[in-house]
Amino acid sequence: MSNKYLISTLFAIFTASSNLWSQELNPGEIQKLRQIHRHIYLSGDCHKWLKGLTQIGGRLAGSPAADSAIRYVYEILDTLPEVSVRLQPCSIPNYWVRGPVEEVIVYDGDKPLSLDCSTLGGSPSTPAEGITAVVQEVYGLEDLERLGRQALEGSIVFFNRPMDAGEVSPFRAYGQAVDQRVRGPAMAARYGAVGAIVRSMTHFLDDVPHTGVTIFRDGEKAIPAIAISTLDADSLSSLIRQRGSVMARIRTSSKNLGPRLSYNVIGEITGSTFPNQIIVVGGHLDAWDNGEGAHDDGAGIVQALQVLQTLVAIDYTPRHTIRFVAYMNEENGGGGARAYADSVRISGETHIAAIESDAGGFAPVGFHWDAQPHLQPYYDSLLQQIIAPHLLQLDLLVRKGGSGADVSKLKPFGTLLFGLRPQPHQYFKYHHTPIDVFDAVHPRELKAGAAAMTSLVYLLDRYLTPPKPPNK
Amino acid sequence: MSNKYLISTLFAIFTASSNLWSQELNPGEIQKLRQIHRHIYLSGDCHKWLKGLTQIGGRLAGSPAADSAIRYVYEILDTLPEVSVRLQPCSIPNYWVRGPVEEVIVYDGDKPLSLDCSTLGGSPSTPAEGITAVVQEVYGLEDLERLGRQALEGSIVFFNRPMDAGEVSPFRAYGQAVDQRVRGPAMAARYGAVGAIVRSMTHFLDDVPHTGVTIFRDGEKAIPAIAISTLDADSLSSLIRQRGSVMARIRTSSKNLGPRLSYNVIGEITGSTFPNQIIVVGGHLDAWDNGEGAHDDGAGIVQALQVLQTLVAIDYTPRHTIRFVAYMNEENGGGGARAYADSVRISGETHIAAIESDAGGFAPVGFHWDAQPHLQPYYDSLLQQIIAPHLLQLDLLVRKGGSGADVSKLKPFGTLLFGLRPQPHQYFKYHHTPIDVFDAVHPRELKAGAAAMTSLVYLLDRYLTPPKPPNK
Repeated sequence: MSNKYLISTLFAIFTASSNLWSQELNPGEIQKLRQIHRHIYLSGDCHKWLKGLTQIGGRLAGSPAADSAIRYVYEILDTLPEVSVRLQPCSIPNYWVRGPVEEVIVYDGDKPLSLDCSTLGGSPSTPAEGITAVVQEVYGLEDLERLGRQALEGSIVFFNRPMDAGEVSPFRAYGQAVDQRVRGPAMAARYGAVGAIVRSMTHFLDDVPHTGVTIFRDGEKAIPAIAISTLDADSLSSLIRQRGSVMARIRTSSKNLGPRLSYNVIGEITGSTFPNQIIVVGGHLDAWDNGEGAHDDGAGIVQALQVLQTLVAIDYTPRHTIRFVAYMNEENGGGGARAYADSVRISGETHIAAIESDAGGFAPVGFHWDAQPHLQPYYDSLLQQIIAPHLLQLDLLVRKGGSGADVSKLKPFGTLLFGLRPQPHQYFKYHHTPIDVFDAVHPRELKAGAAAMTSLVYLLDRYLTPPKPPNK
Repeated sequence: MSNKYLISTLFAIFTASSNLWSQELNPGEIQKLRQIHRHIYLSGDCHKWLKGLTQIGGRLAGSPAADSAIRYVYEILDTLPEVSVRLQPCSIPNYWVRGPVEEVIVYDGDKPLSLDCSTLGGSPSTPAEGITAVVQEVYGLEDLERLGRQALEGSIVFFNRPMDAGEVSPFRAYGQAVDQRVRGPAMAARYGAVGAIVRSMTHFLDDVPHTGVTIFRDGEKAIPAIAISTLDADSLSSLIRQRGSVMARIRTSSKNLGPRLSYNVIGEITGSTFPNQIIVVGGHLDAWDNGEGAHDDGAGIVQALQVLQTLVAIDYTPRHTIRFVAYMNEENGGGGARAYADSVRISGETHIAAIESDAGGFAPVGFHWDAQPHLQPYYDSLLQQIIAPHLLQLDLLVRKGGSGADVSKLKPFGTLLFGLRPQPHQYFKYHHTPIDVFDAVHPRELKAGAAAMTSLVYLLDRYLTPPKPPNK
């Protein structure tokens, strides 16, 4: 970076930031933001759409339910005037199906105790009679190396490090614990383990098991892996402490059915001034099969749809192209995000911003943003100067942080990335569970999130100009 | 204000705000904020205290339940080491008691329909046989003058302007509608009305009636006034449209029992460096008699208690005096806030800041602040410079706005005032109703609010120095 560029950037930050809070907002724009909220609260269809989507139920990539969800979203987009719709093919690495059998039985002496369980996505099946072995409790992947093959060979490894309820951010706590589910079974298999039990990824103590992906890479041995509820994880741990050694039998009839073709659903309003500059809004359409995928991520899909419906309804002609993307396969493969990023790489389309909603349909707190490091001073200045003060008037914050699993694939293209941040306190009660259902989403909170996203899209459309490369 | 002061203030804002977002936060302080959250999430007692407080039930100022609540809070404070406790007498203008009878019957021809109703606090009783009269629907106080005595004399006036569900902020919508409840009945009486029915103050359509205060000033004629649910308000309105004229009978056995003595409960940790500079945290202890006062404002009371418990538990010695105040009589008289402000006026105590939680026990969004206009540039700069960046890291925003009914009485003393702002979307489902109960408050959300308040108290204790008067 040249010094001249650095100095002008710093000056921009310095002068820009003096505006935050004290800036006079444009009355016409304040009026437009109110109009956005008014439309969504009084006439927005996102809650109705969520009803339809959740009635389809769980919709893992490759499943017939996912195909129904693709059609459902396509048809909604097709009813919106000024929106052009298409499907984007994407390759799903592995279509996984949960079978009718899943069971974790632990033996207190001869007495069998059945635990609340859910097979992890990607787990192979057990033999019909199940796998019976000694349970080896560990608190993380590093314990595997410490215990070694001698202790682990032939055992069922039980990953039991809890999500930290004392963490400020439940999402950070999730990030600190989830390696046990994602990579624990594959790592345990390296030491000769024959099965894995994983404590559910939640900071709540209850009897609800949480599924989620576990990954076996090419050439790695795959062993059956099942999550148990946090209450049952505590009971199992306590039983092991009391008895010294505990046997368990795990059974699951899940199947890995290999690659499939699926689709992202795309709908867009062409920009009036900069049709070739794109602002993406999206969520992911797939959802775990054990629930209805209401918070994860039906909410994100219908909120992003609501953005398009609202812009049309309030008669706002965007200057940039506003593109809705329903990503497929976020949960267990990332095929949709990969296909979308590939298409950008090949077409050379300019993506100036991308917003993802994938943290639940709860009341919005604001947005976290991200971008390539060398672009951050520019975006920081732009956001402070004009976007943040407007959003602050709506009690929404903006701060540097992450974005989302799907849109983050656009980072290499210089795109300004956002993740909607709803209040995070209840999300991991529902995440990947049978209780993630339509009724768990409050209509006004869902709409408030959609209004936040639409407000951000509107402000970006008004004020975001992509940075000029410094040395070209 | 001198030019020199103005320029130095502007310079302070200018230089300070360049720090927002980009500022390096002090690692020790970040650690302390994490410790605050960890303590509250893992060991905080606020949710347990809320259980006890809500078991006492509704606790209008002057009632035996209010006395029990005073004892309950006193005893909790008394168990906290380093906290000194006292009662502050306050004068309650009117102890109001709901009687066993409350009824709104409308007649569709001869067919009586019973509506979901709740007598408004301050309403006198009807005769035992009730008051039967024609219903006159109006949409606001201004309709009274338009209709005049000829139309209104002898009628039951029905205030039916809904809270605007299209408003961005439900609290603003409440503010725009609540004059009908607070002053509607007294104004209607001026035109000869014999009773009042008021549409419940909520933007939701349901069958839950919301009580609340109605005010008859000295010398004004008092008429019985009853709220009905929003669904019943819509039905009544529709019946009037269909039939042209509808009769109703209202009955209530509520009573105004006149002035009473009651108490604010005060507990404080004396400051180590500035014992005479006080930071107040509080909520109000009284609650409507028809529910348990969980969100309104049991949550605020236990969150403010949690601030003291946390500071003691993490072994933080505050430099300023941190004072908990449980205000009495916020709901129907303001006696507690008045007594507290009077004591400040007489004692000359310096109150550098005051934080109120009285908007529900939902997940926190951040804080709105307020101060006397001439002090706002100073506080704005101070908040932007150091407090806001720290809170932003916790996903909490700070912006200029209101504070709260009780602490706002400290505004004339130059105090920096804050109101905790939880997510506002569900509050008016519960406000002043029988469903405002313990189970309606989510433990983690309640605790997140307490952690937000404790974080702010900690940062204020570290960084808040009162402004120097410009011309002294």
